[in-house]
Amino acid sequence: MKKIEHIGIAVKDLEKSNTLFASLLGKSHYKIEEVKSEGVKTSFFEIGSNKIELLEGTSENSPISKFIAKKGEGVHHIAFAVDDILSEVKRLKKEGFVVLNETPKKGADNKLVVFLHPKSTNGVLIELCQEVG
Amino acid sequence: MKKIEHIGIAVKDLEKSNTLFASLLGKSHYKIEEVKSEGVKTSFFEIGSNKIELLEGTSENSPISKFIAKKGEGVHHIAFAVDDILSEVKRLKKEGFVVLNETPKKGADNKLVVFLHPKSTNGVLIELCQEVG
Repeated sequence: MKKIEHIGIAVKDLEKSNTLFASLLGKSHYKIEEVKSEGVKTSFFEIGSNKIELLEGTSENSPISKFIAKKGEGVHHIAFAVDDILSEVKRLKKEGFVVLNETPKKGADNKLVVFLHPKSTNGVLIELCQEVG
Repeated sequence: MKKIEHIGIAVKDLEKSNTLFASLLGKSHYKIEEVKSEGVKTSFFEIGSNKIELLEGTSENSPISKFIAKKGEGVHHIAFAVDDILSEVKRLKKEGFVVLNETPKKGADNKLVVFLHPKSTNGVLIELCQEVG
């Protein structure tokens, strides 16, 4: 794990939350991106060497909409940047972590992503992400 | 807001979680610190330019124990480093954020800290922290 790449926050209304986080951080989001395969619309803020990703579900079946229905708005995941996602997945499986998708999938922001089940990580949904070259 | 200083994660058993996060991050915690006034025992991991703070409640009345009883283990707060905590609190109040303690209190890691109510921040407990000079 190299660094915290971003913190993902589940929100009900991306537009309202963009205004809220702009007030909080003192700067605006720098992009909006829809990831249709995941049923989410995202926006990104830069803060220091990290990003904050706001996520709004685009349908009731989106994992984000389900998360909010169950737990309310709030931190959804922490994403760590890795250099070699496949070898990192292999290492973490050996260590006993539960990998949700062994085959990396396309996430927002030009990344390949793998998630670890929060049951194996103290209730924190962990994302590994590797920049697509 | 300068940067994300740390992410605070509420855990039931600090010792077990220290082992877990050492496996996850590939490095051990670098310190343990008890904050008696807050009823917590904490440990810190360095990752890139951020820290991860694990928090275990030291009594049933600790805010961390209450958090876990209600929501389970998981992300408890996001802490942002600020240069001037009093002027930042003033700014955020004006912007409509709900400040939980207007007078900064002593937190772990030689910091003065102020919390914003998650109701005003999309369900995310936000900590502002200023290094004590």
